[in-house]
Amino acid sequence: MDLLQFFEKDILDMESRKRAAFMNSLTGFKSASLIGTMDTSGNTNLAIFSSVVHLGSNPALIGFVNRPDTTERHTLENIQSTKQYTINHIHREIFLKGHQTSARYPKEVSEFDAVGLTPEFSTGFQAPFVKESRIKYGMEFVESHPLKINGTILVIGKVVSVSVPTVCVTEDGTIDVEKADTITISGLDGYHATQRLARLSYAKPDQSPRELND
Amino acid sequence: MDLLQFFEKDILDMESRKRAAFMNSLTGFKSASLIGTMDTSGNTNLAIFSSVVHLGSNPALIGFVNRPDTTERHTLENIQSTKQYTINHIHREIFLKGHQTSARYPKEVSEFDAVGLTPEFSTGFQAPFVKESRIKYGMEFVESHPLKINGTILVIGKVVSVSVPTVCVTEDGTIDVEKADTITISGLDGYHATQRLARLSYAKPDQSPRELND
Repeated sequence: MDLLQFFEKDILDMESRKRAAFMNSLTGFKSASLIGTMDTSGNTNLAIFSSVVHLGSNPALIGFVNRPDTTERHTLENIQSTKQYTINHIHREIFLKGHQTSARYPKEVSEFDAVGLTPEFSTGFQAPFVKESRIKYGMEFVESHPLKINGTILVIGKVVSVSVPTVCVTEDGTIDVEKADTITISGLDGYHATQRLARLSYAKPDQSPRELND
Repeated sequence: MDLLQFFEKDILDMESRKRAAFMNSLTGFKSASLIGTMDTSGNTNLAIFSSVVHLGSNPALIGFVNRPDTTERHTLENIQSTKQYTINHIHREIFLKGHQTSARYPKEVSEFDAVGLTPEFSTGFQAPFVKESRIKYGMEFVESHPLKINGTILVIGKVVSVSVPTVCVTEDGTIDVEKADTITISGLDGYHATQRLARLSYAKPDQSPRELND
């Protein structure tokens, strides 16, 4: 297979949009989520993120990466002022609308209205969920880590509620996200469905992995 | 669709293995990478990670999440002492071997030998790449962020070299990871192939996204 090699200088020398496309695809497949928030005046906001990452199970912690605060970042502003947000999986019927939330709408425009998704509210929780989403969870802000090297912010929260289709929860606790048609993102703009190859048994030094059935 | 609801206490009350399976699948699809390192005595190490995340394009920064340092963590130890590591995409022909690197081999056993993958070296770079991997990149350690709340460590490095099949690099800089058969992980043990639904144009408030062809 014919290979291309790039070194540090080659990447730095790329035109900035090209470099962003290259670097954003280098890590492989990513989670596809819509983060819902509300500002202190009651305006809802919805934004697509591909950087949501598991940080711990006990306590139940999840992080996401927010770009440097050089332009308006309504999601982060709202989380900082209300301490609440929702994370909603994107499935194949809503990925076009999900992508469209990345357009730069003015602060007074709700992306829910602009792209045609429906805010959904849960008792005792202020931030809006996405009604059309199948797997969704409510988050409470815990801490943020600004990364000195480039101003990017890692936002960390704890899971306070989860809603998931009954058919997706398997006996061992695993949520079968493929069964909910959750998709995955590559690069800046690639959307992919998945097809499971296998679930594999817990790896032990003295035996080969075997396929699990569920 | 019939739904299950879980609240914070329900998650904390789960048996620990079940909670790990639940929480590790909650964020959706994840990147699938093998991280290669060498210790100061020249022993190679290889470990699977599903937490590799893009942090910035200029400088070219990538992070991964390392669990709390309560047991032996050879990857992190080696990175801290040599400052170098490689990140290698997992494709469908090597995911069984990739999974098997998660078994707890003693420090003197190289996972390359144990699972049947081949270390590959690049001039002027000490950490081993995975010969069988198609998309791979060399990393230099930049900084680590211990998260106070649970001891998890975010390890940040900069990209110093990238090797990618020529057919996967598109004109706008995007790397077509699906063309390299890169897979995606769900939960603790789910492996999935992908099928691209679309690439979408840069979103603007006044127009709907259209499909890009490449």
